[in-house]
Amino acid sequence: MRMDPIGKRRWAIAEGFIPKESVDESDPALRSHETVCILNAGERDAQVSITVFFTDRDPPPPHRVKVPARRTLHLRFCDIGVPRGTDYASVIESDVPIVVQHTRLDSRRAEIALLSTIAYTE
Amino acid sequence: MRMDPIGKRRWAIAEGFIPKESVDESDPALRSHETVCILNAGERDAQVSITVFFTDRDPPPPHRVKVPARRTLHLRFCDIGVPRGTDYASVIESDVPIVVQHTRLDSRRAEIALLSTIAYTE
Amino acid sequence: MRMDPIGKRRWAIAEGFIPKESVDESDPALRSHETVCILNAGERDAQVSITVFFTDRDPPPPHRVKVPARRTLHLRFCDIGVPRGTDYASVIESDVPIVVQHTRLDSRRAEIALLSTIAYTE
Amino acid sequence: MRMDPIGKRRWAIAEGFIPKESVDESDPALRSHETVCILNAGERDAQVSITVFFTDRDPPPPHRVKVPARRTLHLRFCDIGVPRGTDYASVIESDVPIVVQHTRLDSRRAEIALLSTIAYTE
Repeated sequence: MRMDPIGKRRWAIAEGFIPKESVDESDPALRSHETVCILNAGERDAQVSITVFFTDRDPPPPHRVKVPARRTLHLRFCDIGVPRGTDYASVIESDVPIVVQHTRLDSRRAEIALLSTIAYTE
Repeated sequence: MRMDPIGKRRWAIAEGFIPKESVDESDPALRSHETVCILNAGERDAQVSITVFFTDRDPPPPHRVKVPARRTLHLRFCDIGVPRGTDYASVIESDVPIVVQHTRLDSRRAEIALLSTIAYTE
Repeated sequence: MRMDPIGKRRWAIAEGFIPKESVDESDPALRSHETVCILNAGERDAQVSITVFFTDRDPPPPHRVKVPARRTLHLRFCDIGVPRGTDYASVIESDVPIVVQHTRLDSRRAEIALLSTIAYTE
Repeated sequence: MRMDPIGKRRWAIAEGFIPKESVDESDPALRSHETVCILNAGERDAQVSITVFFTDRDPPPPHRVKVPARRTLHLRFCDIGVPRGTDYASVIESDVPIVVQHTRLDSRRAEIALLSTIAYTE
C-alpha cells in the first residue's frame, strides 16, 4: 500500500498553556498536558522542527524530531521543555507534507476537560 | 431538492486516542469513544476508505464503508478495529466530495469531556 | 465604521448530536444544546438557509433565517426542529459572505462538557 | 534565528459567550473566560484591531493592541470590555500576518469545560 502525501510543510498553533496542577499526578495519562499530534502519511521520513513563542521573550532554539514515513507522533509540549503555567504558541515546520493537530487535557479539577483543533496552515 | 456537492475527497485527522476506561460501561452513548463524522450532501453515494496510522507499525489495510447520497454517517473508530489506549491518526478518502469532522467523548472520570474539530483537507 | 465582508456563502458541519438528557432542565443556558453561530460582518442582511442531514432519511425542507448586517446570530438546532438523541449534520448557505462556527454544550452529567469548531467552507 | 511570516491579516470568530458565573472567583486562572490567542511569528510588530459584533446592536469602536515581533498574546475578551452572559462574535485585523485561535474556559460548575478552534481566515 502506497499513499500520496497529504498535508503541508508549515503549521502554527496560536494557543498554548499547560496547567500547572493535576489532581492525580500518579497517572501520566491523566496529568494535565498539551500535545502536538503529527501525521506523516507519506513515503519519506519527516524532519520536523518545533519553535515555541512566548509573550515576553524571544523563542528558544527549535526542537527537532523525526516522524518516520507512514507513522504518527503525539508529542507532549512538556517533554520538549515548555514550562507549565505559561502562555505560549508554536510553529511546526517539516521537510515533507505533514498534518498537525493540537490537544489539551486539563485535570486541575477532579474531572478532566479537553480541547482540540486542527492547526493553521497555508 | 437537489444540493450541489460540498467538500473534498481527501481528509486527515492527526489526533486519535480512545481512552481505555469508562466510568459507566453499561450506557453505550456515554462510553469513551472517538467518532469520524462524514457528511455526503451530494446526489451520489460515497465509497469511503479509512486508513489508520500508528506510532510504531505500518497502517493495516483500510476500512471501507459506504455513505449514501444526502446522508451523514457518524462512525466510531472502535467499531472498525482501532484499539483503545493507543495513539493513532487517520486519512479518509472518498470517490465523491464529503465533509469530515472528528470528535472524542472521554468518560474516564465521572463527568465527560468532549473535543471536536473539522478535519484537515486540501 | 464600514467593514469589508468576511466569510463564504456555503458551510458544512459534519458532526451533530443533541444529548437527550440534562441534569438541570430549569436553566436554559445549561440545558444540553448545539448551536450554529453565524457572523455577518458585512453591510447587507444575510438570507441564510440551513439544511439538516440524517443517517436514515432525506433532509427535510431547509430552515430559513435572516442575519442582519453587522450582527451575529447564535441559533440552537433544537429551536429549528432537530430532534434530540439523533446523529445529524448540516449545510449552511447564505446570499452574502458569513462565518459559521459549531458548538455543543453537554450537560448529561452534573458537570458540563463543551466542543467547538469553525465549520468547513471552500 | 529569523522566521518567515506565517498567517493572514484578517480573521473571524463566529462564536462568543463568556459565562456569567464561576464557582471560584478567587482564582483568575479558573474564572470563566474567553481568550483570543494571537501569534506574530514574523520580524515586524503587529498593530491589531479587534471588532466585536452583537445580536442586537452595532459593533462598538474596535479595540487596538500591539503584538510585538516573535511574540504571542493571549487576550481575554472580558479585559477589552466584552460583557458576560451575552452572545457575540469578533473580527481580528492586523497589518502583518498573524495566526488566531479562540478558547473558552467555562467554570460555572465545580469542574471546568474547555473549547478551542483555529479562527476562520481567507
